[in-house]
Amino acid sequence: MRCEVVAVGTELLLGQVVDTNSSWIGEHLASLGIDSHYQTKVGDNFDRICAVLRAAAERNDFVVVCGGLGPTPDDITRDALAAVMGVALRRDAELVERISAKFWRRGRSMPANNLRQADVPEGAEVIPIFPGTAPGLVCAVGGTVVYAVPGVPWEMKTMMTDWIAADMRRRAGVSEVIQSRVLRTWGESEGGLAERLAVVIERLDASGTVTLAFLASGMEGLKVRLTAKADTTAEAAAMLDAEEAAVRAAIDERLVFGIDEETMESTVLGLCRRAGLTLATAESLTGGLIAARLSAVAGASDVFRGSLVTYAAETKYRLLGVPHGPVVSEEAVRAMAAGACEQLGADCALAVTGVAGPAPAEGVDPGVVWTATALDGEVEARRHEFPFDRERTRQFTTIGVLNELRLRLLDRAGSAP
Amino acid sequence: MRCEVVAVGTELLLGQVVDTNSSWIGEHLASLGIDSHYQTKVGDNFDRICAVLRAAAERNDFVVVCGGLGPTPDDITRDALAAVMGVALRRDAELVERISAKFWRRGRSMPANNLRQADVPEGAEVIPIFPGTAPGLVCAVGGTVVYAVPGVPWEMKTMMTDWIAADMRRRAGVSEVIQSRVLRTWGESEGGLAERLAVVIERLDASGTVTLAFLASGMEGLKVRLTAKADTTAEAAAMLDAEEAAVRAAIDERLVFGIDEETMESTVLGLCRRAGLTLATAESLTGGLIAARLSAVAGASDVFRGSLVTYAAETKYRLLGVPHGPVVSEEAVRAMAAGACEQLGADCALAVTGVAGPAPAEGVDPGVVWTATALDGEVEARRHEFPFDRERTRQFTTIGVLNELRLRLLDRAGSAP
Repeated sequence: MRCEVVAVGTELLLGQVVDTNSSWIGEHLASLGIDSHYQTKVGDNFDRICAVLRAAAERNDFVVVCGGLGPTPDDITRDALAAVMGVALRRDAELVERISAKFWRRGRSMPANNLRQADVPEGAEVIPIFPGTAPGLVCAVGGTVVYAVPGVPWEMKTMMTDWIAADMRRRAGVSEVIQSRVLRTWGESEGGLAERLAVVIERLDASGTVTLAFLASGMEGLKVRLTAKADTTAEAAAMLDAEEAAVRAAIDERLVFGIDEETMESTVLGLCRRAGLTLATAESLTGGLIAARLSAVAGASDVFRGSLVTYAAETKYRLLGVPHGPVVSEEAVRAMAAGACEQLGADCALAVTGVAGPAPAEGVDPGVVWTATALDGEVEARRHEFPFDRERTRQFTTIGVLNELRLRLLDRAGSAP
Repeated sequence: MRCEVVAVGTELLLGQVVDTNSSWIGEHLASLGIDSHYQTKVGDNFDRICAVLRAAAERNDFVVVCGGLGPTPDDITRDALAAVMGVALRRDAELVERISAKFWRRGRSMPANNLRQADVPEGAEVIPIFPGTAPGLVCAVGGTVVYAVPGVPWEMKTMMTDWIAADMRRRAGVSEVIQSRVLRTWGESEGGLAERLAVVIERLDASGTVTLAFLASGMEGLKVRLTAKADTTAEAAAMLDAEEAAVRAAIDERLVFGIDEETMESTVLGLCRRAGLTLATAESLTGGLIAARLSAVAGASDVFRGSLVTYAAETKYRLLGVPHGPVVSEEAVRAMAAGACEQLGADCALAVTGVAGPAPAEGVDPGVVWTATALDGEVEARRHEFPFDRERTRQFTTIGVLNELRLRLLDRAGSAP
């Protein structure tokens, strides 16, 4: 079975909003075993939305059209669907009530605009759950089932996971499963990994059962993605297990810091947790980014104590005991790491100071960064020179220093990850 | 003139990478006055890449195809282009030299895989600049010019801005300009804004010269986007000036916190800078997110002193002088704001404490958040109950508390923004 995702919105074409919905839906479809060959974006233009919906319906079993169901006049997906189905829109009295009830419950009256959201193409079904104020629709276009969902991400996701997924599998009688596994690595280039994996890749290409691809993903790591197609989830998992082992054997296993959704920060938190260690950070050029990433992980609070974001030099001297003098230096970063442990009562710490740019500071060029890790009372420091812009320098510093602590924690545990 | 963007990569369909390239290219094309009606994503499949390139070439004057130019075996955009052009690939000796020189300069030898990147469809031109190791291509498919650029964002962007943009304008003889202006707001719902703007929207719809759209963008604010099409940049700017004034007159002007790329944090930093005030933060549930956003702004260091990310309760007591007791409370958040001013030597501060979830803490439900702002020695606190998940709670807390400080700074300045 095949499904195309159509994202509607001129803001998507003009690049004012990044279309993360299609990506999310694509991932969800793959996990349902439904193939996705194309994704299309189209603006808020009636004729072009109709054209895209017709083309997508012709070449697919399902279509998910996302966006253009809101209350404002540029929301015309409902109208386009009715046209493609060759029917009229009618106002659904029950929907009017359900939508206004949502406003009452929030203690607000319903703006008149929102009435448009109760318009349904004749013959279409309303998706029974709608978490926001935009109802979703199920429409038949020829033999293809078109699901219309709102562009607000959490509304779309709730509809997809809580209703559409089951409806699709039921209609499709799906049994084939596509499963992916991502090995996240840090410390080797894409070309270098490809060389180490040349034999594995050649074998996979020849067999055609599992595919391998590289995805450079900034501070999410350089990913190696394995994808298997099989009759059952268990069979796909077994194929992925075997190929994951083959990849690990072909590259330095310590390069792999996580699997699938495991981020560098969740891995570091996990290593600390298993070792019974608490963690703190002292940040200058990253300005809280490392702490923000660590605390974004649910359950971080049993390991993560906090961070001293000492952006101004004076705050480094005062709060972290950094000796007066240049603050982009080995001496400063060592004092920061030790100070973070002490001030925040943590067993281990990481510290960064440097010049994010765009301008030099203290006569030091942008991209020069000192990182340090403190563990068991020992501080290790390292100098970096990044050839990047401000944001990428901050991001590479973040994943880089977390990786330095990860490797020390692995050494300490005396075993591979 | 019309241009379609085609993004190549199975990882895009499977949702493992979000396609931010197409968004960026779309925005760039609009600023060049080149229309963009569709954007298409396709997997690493030879036949389907060919099909998409043929369809795009048929309905557009230009195509930008992005991705699939790397050194690995799944990079097949070069092969598909040659097929669509009906020519063979030939290895370009000059390119082989240029690519290997790039590796030499970095002190590395060229992996054999990278030789494939020197393959060029017969009759295609090589884009003269290539910042990475993947050369870009200019190919003629019928009367349409197809530009092939790498999927690595900074390589693609450099090629687009430094060479392709000028080449397109030259070929197109473009004179028409499309310009957009985004008013970023905080404090009113999309439906509410639509009602306040009903008269303006009706007038714009009737005139057809300027369009208005709403874009809910999480911690980037609820955006009102005006788009004007005109013969000259000056004319478009004048139209946007007039309509911006009309929008500001129709809604509460204080709802607008920024224009275009101005974020809530850059606005707050600007207000502090103009008033000669330094700023600090004390963060619990946001865990450094507010500081990370503030420090992401280039030049933040003249205003932003730093942040005490006191994630563990004990660090709040010790570093910020929070009285022992519950840390999700008005008393705690007030002490945090005052403590941040004192410890970081700042004139004003913002503080947040609360439960991001997913689990309750201290018997307090997820979504309960206390925020505080300290200015001129006076602390104001506010309680919130967000109905969101962990990440959105952190994000809404971040933009919300920054907005609270913004409004106080505006009152203090005694004038509208």
